[in-house]
Amino acid sequence: MSDGVGSASLIDVAAVRADTRGIPGVIHFNNAGCALPPRIVTDVQKEYLDQEERLGGYETREAFSDRIDAVYASLATLVGASPDEIALADSATRAWDMVFYGLELAAGDRILTCRSEYGGNAIAYLHRARMSGVEIVVIDDDATGQIDLDRLQKELEVPRTRLVAMNHIPTQGGLINPAERVGGLCREAGVPFLLDACQSVGQLDLSVDLLQCDVLTGTGRKFLRGPRGTGFAYVRAESMELFAPAFLDGRSAVWLGADEYELAPTAIRYETWEKNYANLLGLGAAVDYALSLGMSGIESRVLALGSRLRDSLAEVPRVRLADQGERQCGIVSFTVDGVAPDDVMTTLRRMRLNVSVSRARSSRWDLPRRGLASVVRASAHYYNSSEDIEALVSALSDIQG
Amino acid sequence: MSDGVGSASLIDVAAVRADTRGIPGVIHFNNAGCALPPRIVTDVQKEYLDQEERLGGYETREAFSDRIDAVYASLATLVGASPDEIALADSATRAWDMVFYGLELAAGDRILTCRSEYGGNAIAYLHRARMSGVEIVVIDDDATGQIDLDRLQKELEVPRTRLVAMNHIPTQGGLINPAERVGGLCREAGVPFLLDACQSVGQLDLSVDLLQCDVLTGTGRKFLRGPRGTGFAYVRAESMELFAPAFLDGRSAVWLGADEYELAPTAIRYETWEKNYANLLGLGAAVDYALSLGMSGIESRVLALGSRLRDSLAEVPRVRLADQGERQCGIVSFTVDGVAPDDVMTTLRRMRLNVSVSRARSSRWDLPRRGLASVVRASAHYYNSSEDIEALVSALSDIQG
Repeated sequence: MSDGVGSASLIDVAAVRADTRGIPGVIHFNNAGCALPPRIVTDVQKEYLDQEERLGGYETREAFSDRIDAVYASLATLVGASPDEIALADSATRAWDMVFYGLELAAGDRILTCRSEYGGNAIAYLHRARMSGVEIVVIDDDATGQIDLDRLQKELEVPRTRLVAMNHIPTQGGLINPAERVGGLCREAGVPFLLDACQSVGQLDLSVDLLQCDVLTGTGRKFLRGPRGTGFAYVRAESMELFAPAFLDGRSAVWLGADEYELAPTAIRYETWEKNYANLLGLGAAVDYALSLGMSGIESRVLALGSRLRDSLAEVPRVRLADQGERQCGIVSFTVDGVAPDDVMTTLRRMRLNVSVSRARSSRWDLPRRGLASVVRASAHYYNSSEDIEALVSALSDIQG
Repeated sequence: MSDGVGSASLIDVAAVRADTRGIPGVIHFNNAGCALPPRIVTDVQKEYLDQEERLGGYETREAFSDRIDAVYASLATLVGASPDEIALADSATRAWDMVFYGLELAAGDRILTCRSEYGGNAIAYLHRARMSGVEIVVIDDDATGQIDLDRLQKELEVPRTRLVAMNHIPTQGGLINPAERVGGLCREAGVPFLLDACQSVGQLDLSVDLLQCDVLTGTGRKFLRGPRGTGFAYVRAESMELFAPAFLDGRSAVWLGADEYELAPTAIRYETWEKNYANLLGLGAAVDYALSLGMSGIESRVLALGSRLRDSLAEVPRVRLADQGERQCGIVSFTVDGVAPDDVMTTLRRMRLNVSVSRARSSRWDLPRRGLASVVRASAHYYNSSEDIEALVSALSDIQG
């Protein structure tokens, strides 16, 4: 049964809440950090660990090979790709690294990105700038706060522009970047597009064809509600030659002779041989759970809850919303006059209300320019209820500096 | 109570078997693949997953921060290092990659390795040879089958020798390479030494000072009896400047300003931010379990069981041992006349006896030169009993081609 939030929502809120063991004990608005998993995810992880304990790790891997293969198919369905275009990793960052660092770049080559870019990615750009003399161009925001598409289009025409790499939804809240339009401009200019979908996968209904991206990376632990230490990359089949894997081993390549090797023909060329299969199956269970609910209904409800949360917070005295963008998501960022964001988080935590804090030190191209040192981040998922929002609003109304 | 195998052994075999849930159901000689964990490892993983489910992933990480820090200290104790010299990863391969690929090498620079090198590492050497024109020099074996130290010493004198990288114990069985002596020669020549200790950590009593290595990498799942998807690198503090991390993110570096960053001061510069903490604590529990038994006693018993297994197999008609080396370990490799190694493994598996197969395609510099396409690998751990060995010998005596 739906509670009416999310116009197209077919999500049975009571049922998804009953599927979530954490729900009775905590009001969780830290879904952009790490969501509460549905019980099936943890159950699958534990079941697999039990088997490993009793049969042996390699022997269990063999016995579960069909279910392991199915995880690639599930992720492919989730983003509208082929299973051969999916690579698994222990984090979105590692999946992203394996592709990003594999792109050959020479001094003077240019990478375009946006102001709201994730700190971890930004450090990797600066790393390559320092190591190889690559030029990093941070495209300014437009008046709404999203990446300025006109500026992007102009920069795409500058010679030696080799890559556009940016987030779909920034970690510091609010905004959904116009990734489809970025992808269209990249396609026109013939520049490859690497999309960090960490905060959008599991939240938005994604299609790599509509996004027109060459690479998309995502994490398990956030809106997908999967295990920590899981991530994946989609790499378009036609783009694999461009993005060489950064590292090779016996999974990503075959040792043909004393001094010969050959890359794996599919996206497993971006993987490593060893992995934790309990987590991998937990990720598969999370994806299947999301697919069974339907990504369209999930997107509708999450965005509607974000909007309701934003509207409700706007009414609270001393709360200032810090979101921007033409289109907004389930992540809501704000400050409270007279109370430091860390103190807001700590006070709420004592009331079993989980939120997080986004800091300037991980968004140096964005928050400082907006005069913000840090913001509170409350991120809603489809299992959050209207009562959860009321509880958060009520707690914030009472908060003392 | 000890069963007398392993002269200095103080291992209470009945107790360690009782600690192992897999023992009653399977006779496990695939410890060089993935060992059976002690119950504490799986219990710790499940306990952590339960907490994440109820508190949230980030909130649990905070609550367990002391126990997470303690894992670095445990691994440091295990190899005789400082906690600041330990980096965690989701596999030994990724830990190795982060260091190996970070070493700057130019065309004509030389890497020395050995014939028994692990296939995954060999592919990485060939990768760098293809990408950057680095020269890979495979040092021949001596008459016993271990790396020839005289040849190594000569090659170390050749200009532009930038690295010695090799395994301590090869995956295809038998041999313990004279790593301490290799380390001594490297130190004399001023060439850094990267030691892959995947098969020795948890099996041998290791000291990075005695080994004189700059880097040592290990896995959780093999002789340490930890979770799959865990690994670590030790990097000597003085050697960190030489081995830059291959990738950077918000864990390995701090974003200081719009275009400035700084590496983390310790070995966490080789890590990534996201990880699976259930596995990490499982690894810590495995290390603590090994330390509580004592690595000296473990080494004594594993080597003694390996020796007994080798002697027993030598008596079985049609079995041919394929081990070499001046000093041998708990990993025993062999063939059975008239029965393909894969068929030996499958037949034994049906009898709930786990062994594995090492193949020429992952040891192209070794097995083919010895006329071997593949070998059966039976790897003993301290929890294996004399009765386990008798059962394996009996099954092999009866095996049909």
